[in-house]
Amino acid sequence: MSQEIKITIWNEYRHEKTNDQVSSIYPQGMHSAIAEGLHGTSDKITIATLDDPEHGLSEAVLEQTDVLIWWGHMAHDEVNNEIVDRVYQRVLKGMGLIVLHSGHFSKIFKKLMGTSCDLKWREAGEKERIWVVNPGHPIADGIGEYIELPQEEMYGEHFDIPQPDELVMVSWFEGGEVFRSGCCYTRGSGKIFYFRPGHETYPTYYNPQIRKVISNAVKWAAPVKRDYPRYGHAEQPLEIIKGDNK
Amino acid sequence: MSQEIKITIWNEYRHEKTNDQVSSIYPQGMHSAIAEGLHGTSDKITIATLDDPEHGLSEAVLEQTDVLIWWGHMAHDEVNNEIVDRVYQRVLKGMGLIVLHSGHFSKIFKKLMGTSCDLKWREAGEKERIWVVNPGHPIADGIGEYIELPQEEMYGEHFDIPQPDELVMVSWFEGGEVFRSGCCYTRGSGKIFYFRPGHETYPTYYNPQIRKVISNAVKWAAPVKRDYPRYGHAEQPLEIIKGDNK
Amino acid sequence: MSQEIKITIWNEYRHEKTNDQVSSIYPQGMHSAIAEGLHGTSDKITIATLDDPEHGLSEAVLEQTDVLIWWGHMAHDEVNNEIVDRVYQRVLKGMGLIVLHSGHFSKIFKKLMGTSCDLKWREAGEKERIWVVNPGHPIADGIGEYIELPQEEMYGEHFDIPQPDELVMVSWFEGGEVFRSGCCYTRGSGKIFYFRPGHETYPTYYNPQIRKVISNAVKWAAPVKRDYPRYGHAEQPLEIIKGDNK
Amino acid sequence: MSQEIKITIWNEYRHEKTNDQVSSIYPQGMHSAIAEGLHGTSDKITIATLDDPEHGLSEAVLEQTDVLIWWGHMAHDEVNNEIVDRVYQRVLKGMGLIVLHSGHFSKIFKKLMGTSCDLKWREAGEKERIWVVNPGHPIADGIGEYIELPQEEMYGEHFDIPQPDELVMVSWFEGGEVFRSGCCYTRGSGKIFYFRPGHETYPTYYNPQIRKVISNAVKWAAPVKRDYPRYGHAEQPLEIIKGDNK
Repeated sequence: MSQEIKITIWNEYRHEKTNDQVSSIYPQGMHSAIAEGLHGTSDKITIATLDDPEHGLSEAVLEQTDVLIWWGHMAHDEVNNEIVDRVYQRVLKGMGLIVLHSGHFSKIFKKLMGTSCDLKWREAGEKERIWVVNPGHPIADGIGEYIELPQEEMYGEHFDIPQPDELVMVSWFEGGEVFRSGCCYTRGSGKIFYFRPGHETYPTYYNPQIRKVISNAVKWAAPVKRDYPRYGHAEQPLEIIKGDNK
Repeated sequence: MSQEIKITIWNEYRHEKTNDQVSSIYPQGMHSAIAEGLHGTSDKITIATLDDPEHGLSEAVLEQTDVLIWWGHMAHDEVNNEIVDRVYQRVLKGMGLIVLHSGHFSKIFKKLMGTSCDLKWREAGEKERIWVVNPGHPIADGIGEYIELPQEEMYGEHFDIPQPDELVMVSWFEGGEVFRSGCCYTRGSGKIFYFRPGHETYPTYYNPQIRKVISNAVKWAAPVKRDYPRYGHAEQPLEIIKGDNK
Repeated sequence: MSQEIKITIWNEYRHEKTNDQVSSIYPQGMHSAIAEGLHGTSDKITIATLDDPEHGLSEAVLEQTDVLIWWGHMAHDEVNNEIVDRVYQRVLKGMGLIVLHSGHFSKIFKKLMGTSCDLKWREAGEKERIWVVNPGHPIADGIGEYIELPQEEMYGEHFDIPQPDELVMVSWFEGGEVFRSGCCYTRGSGKIFYFRPGHETYPTYYNPQIRKVISNAVKWAAPVKRDYPRYGHAEQPLEIIKGDNK
Repeated sequence: MSQEIKITIWNEYRHEKTNDQVSSIYPQGMHSAIAEGLHGTSDKITIATLDDPEHGLSEAVLEQTDVLIWWGHMAHDEVNNEIVDRVYQRVLKGMGLIVLHSGHFSKIFKKLMGTSCDLKWREAGEKERIWVVNPGHPIADGIGEYIELPQEEMYGEHFDIPQPDELVMVSWFEGGEVFRSGCCYTRGSGKIFYFRPGHETYPTYYNPQIRKVISNAVKWAAPVKRDYPRYGHAEQPLEIIKGDNK
């Protein structure tokens, strides 16, 4: 059944076109590596990038998306506010959203979190260990005690996010920092997972454990099937209509 | 796949044998009505009751249980402490546990919560409305805005439980009380769902929406597949073994 | 010491000028009744209203505010976005914010929550019982099991907010609805409390228990004394500068 | 006012009598160093130790205790179950509890958590950095971005505790582990803070920042003033007694 989850991978897709180091690691774009990692999870994967019309996120595409994966970095400001609002409304109505790495500073993530989403960072090729702190969580399914990445960009606390509804992973960095790396939220009827790793100059999205986490997150974030709640003026309740108890 | 979730339904099974009103509603026992509601969810359902040897919860049975459902009321004290510890250890290692109604006062629930689990109650055949307050949660899948039960026992706040990790439902009662009715917890690697309704003198477990919630909870609470974490003394880390950075 | 908490009460202050029913209940404005209820808590209370220059929320006023109380309803759209951003930045840096009743739909609350903050409502003069579900919480200090208001506007679930960090109170309404009425959040270094009651056509802010809750919330939301976290590029850690462990 | 918080410090007080290294660091016992750190916070401090009659925790002592601090390690099993139950009941009724370091394995902490409270550990004199992840929390008042301890015992994840209601601090260890080091819970009406550092062979409780955290935690955990909730059978509500609305 999970093969039927409709996934859209949104990639900024700029570093790969301008930076030789990045393009040598991700010659088909980071989205391709992420998509490859999801082949066992779904065969309904759509790619969307910043430079596509409407950033590839038309009403029709979003309407057909169960879970949206987001990677962006250098061009957050170029994402059109109208499209951000469109994605936002879809999340509230149930679409899952997985925000990767530098996507912490995307307009859509900041809008959904209500905070600055700021953090500390350092590019020094440090070792990262991503420890599982919630071993029964479905996003930790099949993952060992920790995932070790030999080299990654450091992200450090304080990470200015709301307290996660569920904290699944915490990173250790060689240089002395920690970071809440796997964070679950619900906004409206939509589920959101922030996952830290994935700097463009490292082959992180080829790592089988990282791919497994993203795959687990897709399944966790897929929408439930129920009507969107009704809001606004509520009819008089039966008791009051009857008028016999006032 | 969910058809393969191995479910054990534990029922105290005393009221049905001694109270005509209860036996007229649940002639085959409350466990039968609960099991019937799970037919579309799993075909691997085991029944266990208080008066079975080892209360039906041998090591072998628990080892083969993914999710245990618990209904008890008048004989909580008769449940053997050794069996309670056995269930407790299984939950910490990943078995799901769904505690129904008066099971709030069971030894196993109190042991896992760490609180008295006390509450207010009143038997007055009051109307209950169970409102969904977390519409994106998988346990709310397919459920309307609220479930209305024409007559139920009242449970009222303060309900002495730890703050739920996720609060899914809140009940309204005709007499003026509210109650946190659908509460999610994780303990160790095991997921726990407390679900309020189901007094023995009402046909609550025949209600299709109530059955849907229990079915959803079974799927939500099913264990993930990963090794149990290692605890205790940790080996020296690589850096320190190398001895080159002290 | 709490007498030194610097409080600013922001009131839209429109209903009182145009609606005879409201002005007869709150002849000096709702802010005056709220301020009166805080006399034992602080003697440093500033009033700000929508029609003041900069809505009464200049940089200087906000800089001198520990906790901001917000009541708005009919003119949310008239609040200047620049002022909203100013308040938002102050909350992230530690200012407490208490949002009352129809303030759920204010720009500042929606921006901090990241959701629509929509709900159900009905004006039918219904009885409300606000039950304490977290009896050890400082906001429940001195409050009984519940606060009963003989007549209030109904607010019903689903209330489209993020799951509260701490849920302190839940309301029961005569007509059959429930509502999460006392909700705690942290955003950045600022603490936020949403408190449901206070429709302009009822004398709710004269109720001693309601005043006690607001007073408790002010103390709870007052900022801690510490430096704002540093964000952005982090210096090389000592170990790496030393260069002796790579 | 905080000078009036009645604190009891419970220390196992065995290592100090049998281990020269420990007694050289804490010649008057660890409780004395902890008490010294609280002098600005309260002048009502009681000391209780394992070898006192009733472990120093008579009904009278507990009745007069607002916040109990607990340090134990090698003799958890010698703590009498009846005394554990006594402390447990007091916590549910509102007494604050601060559990330090190896107290994670105390009977009282495990009983309140409902989990094994197991973890990884290593004694290798590693550097620890305790990062603040919730900068607005009162327990972080006056604390910098992190507290650095040059040498401590390592505690590593997975730490088998329920998800904290509020996570305030996360530790980094030189050897590659992380740990949730400052964890807030409510059980019944009582507030609980677990704080990781404090191995007996290091002078941790002389560190001014560590003392500040413990002092903050005492203030945070002090009980509110309100009646304990009523539980059990609830009277018929007014509406039903009147019998006029059925």
